[in-house]
Formats: sequence, C-alpha cells, structure tokens
Amino acid sequence: MTATIKLGQLAEFLGATLRGDPEKAITGLATLQEAGPAQLSFLANPQYRKYLVDSRAAALLLKADDAEGFAGDALIVPDPYLAYARISHLFDPKPKSAAGIHPSAVIAADAIVDPTASIGPFVVIESAARIGAGVTLGAHCFVGARSEIGEGGWLAPRVTLYHDVRIGKRVVIQSGAVLGGEGFGFANEKGVWQKIAQIGGVTVGDDVEIGVNTAIDRGALADTVIGNGVKLDNQIQIAHNVQVGDHTAMAACVGISGSTKIGRHCMLAGGVGLVGHIEICDNVFLTGMTMVTHSITEPGSYSSGTAMQPAAEWRKSAARIRQLDDMARRLRQLEKRVGDVTPGGNASSDG
Amino acid sequence: MTATIKLGQLAEFLGATLRGDPEKAITGLATLQEAGPAQLSFLANPQYRKYLVDSRAAALLLKADDAEGFAGDALIVPDPYLAYARISHLFDPKPKSAAGIHPSAVIAADAIVDPTASIGPFVVIESAARIGAGVTLGAHCFVGARSEIGEGGWLAPRVTLYHDVRIGKRVVIQSGAVLGGEGFGFANEKGVWQKIAQIGGVTVGDDVEIGVNTAIDRGALADTVIGNGVKLDNQIQIAHNVQVGDHTAMAACVGISGSTKIGRHCMLAGGVGLVGHIEICDNVFLTGMTMVTHSITEPGSYSSGTAMQPAAEWRKSAARIRQLDDMARRLRQLEKRVGDVTPGGNASSDG
Amino acid sequence: MTATIKLGQLAEFLGATLRGDPEKAITGLATLQEAGPAQLSFLANPQYRKYLVDSRAAALLLKADDAEGFAGDALIVPDPYLAYARISHLFDPKPKSAAGIHPSAVIAADAIVDPTASIGPFVVIESAARIGAGVTLGAHCFVGARSEIGEGGWLAPRVTLYHDVRIGKRVVIQSGAVLGGEGFGFANEKGVWQKIAQIGGVTVGDDVEIGVNTAIDRGALADTVIGNGVKLDNQIQIAHNVQVGDHTAMAACVGISGSTKIGRHCMLAGGVGLVGHIEICDNVFLTGMTMVTHSITEPGSYSSGTAMQPAAEWRKSAARIRQLDDMARRLRQLEKRVGDVTPGGNASSDG
Repeated sequence: MTATIKLGQLAEFLGATLRGDPEKAITGLATLQEAGPAQLSFLANPQYRKYLVDSRAAALLLKADDAEGFAGDALIVPDPYLAYARISHLFDPKPKSAAGIHPSAVIAADAIVDPTASIGPFVVIESAARIGAGVTLGAHCFVGARSEIGEGGWLAPRVTLYHDVRIGKRVVIQSGAVLGGEGFGFANEKGVWQKIAQIGGVTVGDDVEIGVNTAIDRGALADTVIGNGVKLDNQIQIAHNVQVGDHTAMAACVGISGSTKIGRHCMLAGGVGLVGHIEICDNVFLTGMTMVTHSITEPGSYSSGTAMQPAAEWRKSAARIRQLDDMARRLRQLEKRVGDVTPGGNASSDG
Repeated sequence: MTATIKLGQLAEFLGATLRGDPEKAITGLATLQEAGPAQLSFLANPQYRKYLVDSRAAALLLKADDAEGFAGDALIVPDPYLAYARISHLFDPKPKSAAGIHPSAVIAADAIVDPTASIGPFVVIESAARIGAGVTLGAHCFVGARSEIGEGGWLAPRVTLYHDVRIGKRVVIQSGAVLGGEGFGFANEKGVWQKIAQIGGVTVGDDVEIGVNTAIDRGALADTVIGNGVKLDNQIQIAHNVQVGDHTAMAACVGISGSTKIGRHCMLAGGVGLVGHIEICDNVFLTGMTMVTHSITEPGSYSSGTAMQPAAEWRKSAARIRQLDDMARRLRQLEKRVGDVTPGGNASSDG
Repeated sequence: MTATIKLGQLAEFLGATLRGDPEKAITGLATLQEAGPAQLSFLANPQYRKYLVDSRAAALLLKADDAEGFAGDALIVPDPYLAYARISHLFDPKPKSAAGIHPSAVIAADAIVDPTASIGPFVVIESAARIGAGVTLGAHCFVGARSEIGEGGWLAPRVTLYHDVRIGKRVVIQSGAVLGGEGFGFANEKGVWQKIAQIGGVTVGDDVEIGVNTAIDRGALADTVIGNGVKLDNQIQIAHNVQVGDHTAMAACVGISGSTKIGRHCMLAGGVGLVGHIEICDNVFLTGMTMVTHSITEPGSYSSGTAMQPAAEWRKSAARIRQLDDMARRLRQLEKRVGDVTPGGNASSDG
C-alpha cells in the first residue's frame, strides 16, 4: 500500500527542476513539520516559510524564490500546491478494484456493463442502466433504471442513483450520496399536502465530485443539472430543478432550494443556504453560513450573520437588535432637534 | 416508460371542462416555456401568464379566467396546480416493483410479509416485523425487530428502520433515511458522558413523506411521534421525543432538538433550527435558517438572521452589532442631554 | 423483549438505599407523568418536582432531599439522572446479535474477525481489516482495507468505514455514518479544480459515539483524529484533518471545517459551524447555530445570530442592521455637536 518513487522520477512526472539526489527514495507525503526523511513536503502558504529550516523532509516542492533560501533537496515548480495535488495520487493508498462483476451483484438482463468496469458485492443495477468503461461501483451501490455512469467514474460503497440519473465522465461520488431522490413537491389542498410526482431526472457533467451523504433531487419536470467540474462536499442538499454552473465548488452542509440557478466558478463556503427560484451570477463567493434570500447579479463576496460574542454580551446585542428600528427613529429625531438648536447643523444622511 | 394518455381521458380523470380535441395524445408534462406539442402544461403562478401566448404545449390546465385569454386547447379546472399534482402521477417514469420477495432477501422466520408486498434484493427484515399489503421495500432496506410498515408504503432503496418503528399507511421514505437511531442521550459523570439507552420507539402516521438522508431518532422513554400527513424534506434531523403535528411540512436541513413539540399545519423553511423542550403552536411559518430558542404561542410568520451584504459592508455591520449595547446607552444619554438644553423636548421612548 | 427486574435487585445494582418492597417487579422506565404501576421513574430536574405527588410509578429514583417529601417507594441515590442512565441499559429492547458470521457476508481472506464478533447479512470486510472481540457489525456494513474496530464496538446496520480507519474500543456508530470519506481537497488551476488524493486516515478513540448519517473525512496527509469519549450526534460533518479533544460532545447538524482543532470537554449545540484552521480551547460551550470564524482561547460560552422576531418586525431589524454603520457615525457626530452646545458635556466612549 505504500508507494516508493525516486525523486528524479517525481521531477520528471512534474516537469520540475530537480535540485538534489535523483535516486533518493520517496515513500510518502507529509506537512513540513511532520515529514520524515523519506517523505516529500511542500511550501504553498508563505505563513509556513518559518518551518523550512527545521523540516526533516527528504525534499520539498518549492517555488524558485523559496528554493533560494533553502539548503536541502528540492523540486522547483511554479505552483507547489498544484504539484502536490498532482503527485498526491501516486501515493494514494486507496485500493484499486479489479475489473469484473462480483457474483453477488444483481444486474438486470438489459443493463449494459462495460467489461472493464468493476462491480462490487451486493450492487444492484436495474433495467436499461449503462455502466461505462473503467467505472468502479463500490459495494452496496444501487443504479436505477435507465441511469448512466460515464467512463472512469468512481462510486464509493453505498451510493444510490434512482432512475434516469445521467452521470458524465470521471465523476467521483462518495458513500451515502443519493442522486435522483424525489424532490419536495406538494400542492396544498385545504391544508393537506398532495404529492406531485417528480418526473424529471438528474444530469451531472464530467469531472464532478459529490461528497458523503450529499443529496441531489431529481427535477419536477425537466432535469436537475450539475455542470462540468463542479465539486460538492459532504452533507449538501440540492433541491429539484436546481442548476449549478461549471467549476463551481460548495463546501459541506450547503442547502440550495428548488429551481435556484447558480453560475460558473462560484464558491459557497460551509453551511450557506439559498432560497428557491433565485439566480446567482458567475464568480460569486459566499462566506460560511450566509443566508441568501435574493438573486445576486454582481460578482464578488457576500456574507450575512453576526459575529460570535461571549454569550452574555451576545444576549445584550441580540436584545438591542430588536430595538434597532426604534433606535433609528430616535436618532433621526435627535438629529432634527439638534439641528434646530445648533444653527450650523448640517443634515446628516438618513440611510 | 412514457405514458400516452388522451386529452379527453385526462379531462375525465380530473373532472375538468375540456376545450379542444379529446383524441389528442399527451405523452408528458412540462413547463409553459418548455412544453412541446405532445406535452401538457399548466398556469398556476400569474407571473407566468406572459408565457401563455408562445406556449407550444398540446394543451394547458387553466382557470376559467385565464382560459378566456388563451386560444389553444385547455382543461379548465378550479386549481391548475392541484390538477397538475394529480395527473403528474400518470406520467411518472418511476419503476413499479412486482409483488414478491427477491431470493437474496434475508427475512426472519417470524416476520410477517404480506404476499402483495414487493421486497427488493438484499433487504433484511428482522424478527416479528410486519410488512403490510402493497408495500415496496427497495434494495438494501433494513427493517428491525418488531417494526411495522402499513399498507401501501413505498421505501426507496437503502432505508433503515431500527427496531420498534411503527409506520402508518401510504408512507413514502426516500433513500438514506434512518428511523429509530439512538438519540443523543448521555448523563455527565465528572466530565465523562455515560450513555442512556433509548428504549422508546418511533411512531409515524399515515400519508407521511420522509426525505433523503433524513434522521428521526427513537424516543428515550416513550416514542418520537410524527403525525398524519407530515412532509419532511431531505437532510432533516428529528431528535428523540420530538412530536410533529398533522400536516406540518419541513423543508431540507431543518434540525429539531429533543422533546420539542411542533403543532399542526406548520411550515418550516430550509435550515431552520429549534432548541429542545419548547412548543410551537399550530399554523406557524418559520422562514429559512431561523433560529428558534423559545416556544411560539401565536400563529404567524417568524424569522431571525441578518440580510446578506457585500462582504466588506457586512464586516462593518457585524462589528457595529457588537457595539450596539454601547450605542443604545449613548443614544439614551444624548436624549437626556438634548432634553435638558431644548425646553420643548419631549422624552422619546426607551425601547 | 421486556425485562422484569425486582426493585431490590435494582437497588443492589445501583448501590442505592431502598425504601419500599424489594420484591416489587419493575418492567420498564417512564417519565414521572407517564409511568405506570410497574414502571420506575426518576426526578432529576427540580422543575418536575410538582409531578411527584401524582406519579403512579412503582418507585422513583430520588435524591435524599426529595425522598423526604415523597411517600412512595424510592431508590435513594446521589444523582438520579446518572442512576437512570445506568439502569436504562437493563431495560433496553435493542436486539442482541449472536456471535458468528452471516453466510451472506463477503470477507477478505486476510481479514481478521474475532470469533466472538457478530457479522450481519451482506456485510463486506476488505483486505487486512481487523474486527475485535465482541464487535457487532449490523447488516450492510462496509469495512475497508486495513481498517480496525476495537473490542466491544457496535455498528448499526449500514455503516461505512473506508480504508485505513482505526476505531477504538466500545465505539457505537449509528446507521448511515461514513468514516474516511475523501475530504474536500482541491487545488485550483486556472479556474479548474484538481483533486488532491486524501492519503491520511481516521483515528477514533475509545468510548466514542457517532450519530446517524454523520460524516468524518479522512485526513489529507495525516489522520483526522477523534479523541476518547467524544459523542457526536446525527448529521454532523467533520472535515479532513480535524482534531476533536477527549470528552467533547456535539449535537446534531454541526459542521467543522478542515484542520480545525477542538479542545477537551467542549460542548457544541446543534447547527454550530466552524471555519477551518482555527483552534478552540478546552471547556468551550457554543450555543446553537453559532458561526465561529476565529479561534477561541478562553473557556466559556459563546454565541452568534439574532433573536427570532415576527417576520414583519424582523424585516425592519434586518434593514436597520444594514444601516448600522451609518447610524454609528451619525451618533458620534451628534455627540460631538451636543458636546459643543452643552458646556458640561463629557465625551462618551466611541466603542
């Protein structure tokens, strides 16, 4: 499970400038502070530059500037973090599954499974589903009728795709994720909720990652759509008819309400919530736990919420917020009266 | 997978007034803007009235008023959205499972499974459980000891019911939901948490829907109780001993803490959180991400949180909120002093 | 499924002072208000003292002080809630699984399963995994390569451990939990996210409890670490490289971002969110839905958010918060001007 790769091979793989012994054996990756004498490390964040001098790492991924001030072996690259990302896969202990179908799997006669795919124990594949070349389906995965997984996909154990879920190429889905669940669609008839069948599906682009226990509901009429290169962390909720633009990333615990449309290259930090039927333009960054109640038409960073305080102080602030409207009126009144008694008073803006 | 139904048949099914060709074949449903010439659409939201003129739909579900201004075929009904809800099921491509038990299922000898039920691959049903008439258990479902599912229930693949979970009739449970998990019950003994066995169960009424990856914990002593007609969206957390009144609906990512009691016909928008041991009366609407820290005794709408701002402005607001108590005191002080120097000053209310 | 235990036996088990009939048969536990004549109850919260007089319980767990004012049978103990916690397990109807491996389980030839462990239907155990003495693995559990579960562990049906997840002794994991998922690690290359392999694992201490559908990601380089005695409720997200100190408890729906370190004996209420790369010291209490954006270095209680209001009032408050910076400047200006016209004016603090 532990790879051993020579420093010179890593330089070649990365197209890096090697400074040091090309024969040095690298057995893993670690942080600057924790790396041992057979491990490679990297400096990406300037804050950690102070750890360079004491690092015991076999070698470091460094920018040219940083390499000048470092005496040890180095692989010099333009972007050390990206270089680390690329070689991390060489040291990944994740088991690779062999091609073939586990004898316990239950596969519909008219499902199409590429012979290079790996189908784990207790997998269920329903009628007319299609599993592409090189796809891995972990144990206990369920692929519903007519659903499709493009080539190179990797599904952890226990992923559920309902029927009519179309997944692009090289998509990674973590355990517990559910795609195609029946969205929250009900019509109210005199106080009683009547279910609306969710007859759309889900379309997921290429190179998407979907995290642990994340849910993406099927569309009510048309498909819910996840663009190419989208990265969704764990415990996310994507409601029916949502559209997520290419290369947008969402951290854990985000919730997107129905029919909302999110642009390309957006970043949603953890716990963000969006109401339904709004549009977020491209290149929007939402800080953690922001509550988004209307569309955003300008790129940029947005936030909501209050700063944490010691609980006793917070209780005062929270009480005062409820008085704010009254305070604002009293402030305006004071301004008028002070304006009356101070002849030079200039009217201040009433926001 | 695609149904074809004549327009006249749909009129009959709905009790609608048909205006147009009863023999026209309808193959599906779509929005006004997307419907093609074999698809039915509907106008429910007046905002979309502008799309009527260009709709290519085969026919529309319309109110009588709207039908007057529309030239094409129509099914005239009092509530088009409700009519759409009713006929949506006719076009639902969701596979129907045949009655019978998949040979891979593991079923305790003393469990009772109605012969009309459909039990999928790798299902586990434990001792003394009861599965009612017409129930569907998707692949990988687990039904614990003595648990019961009433007639007409539909459980997606991979639903877990622990022991002593009693489910009413026609209940729908989406994939990944877990009912009867052991609630968060611990007694603190000198800083160390001692587990309290959760010996109650879960009772779920009729016509309930439970969303993807939603958790409903078992009661500590008595049951956790979900009323009739309750609709729970995805990723919801219902803690031990909670009671939810009939026909209450909760959108995704809501969290209800232990022993809290929620009334009938309430609506909780996404991301709402409730502390434990409080009561919410009937007909309460909580807007998204509201933090509920005390009981609510009056019907109506309630909210908390701050409005989203560009991040730079938000940082200023957040800093000012921490100064609010100081600001309020200074405002009061100014009022007193201005009252002193301005003879006609009338005291303003100190909220 | 219902235990019957004599009152005298319970007194002996608890080391309690018995007042009443040692032969009285106890068949279960219930609250003061609901207990019937064969059930034991307890008084822990003084608020419930009013229910003592009408309780129909067979006997009560009471402090000596409370026992003086109560006429019925009693078990007198120093901490009734803790005593209730201890005896609750005697009345727990949770089925016990017999030792042995279900014939449907798929177990790698080089995995080591203690003969006293109970392995349920459709369990998958991969290469070089180790299952300790007395461990229960519920149906559909998945244990990845080289993962280990210490003695006495209890995993509900459908728990997923990826590879290289090391679990201590007596750990309880509820259904749907996923340990070792691939954390949210990506490097941005010209707007496109490149995946970083997550080569660390997860280490979980002894006596930990992990709730329904909770996710704990594997470390990027080193392990994600959960200390001894930690209790995690449902729907929690623990990102990669997080460290949680011993005996810390988190209620449902908490989200901890990557590389954050949480101290010992902390309590996080429901829905709390923490940004990444911060440190929380020991003995911190975070109230529900608090947004934590920086480290905490002093023990104590902390909060954020605004108090719930009727929605119409809340809209005014929310609008005013956006004007706060302007209000604060206007207030300062007024103070200066009033200071000018009132000779005795002393400058107030500008917070």
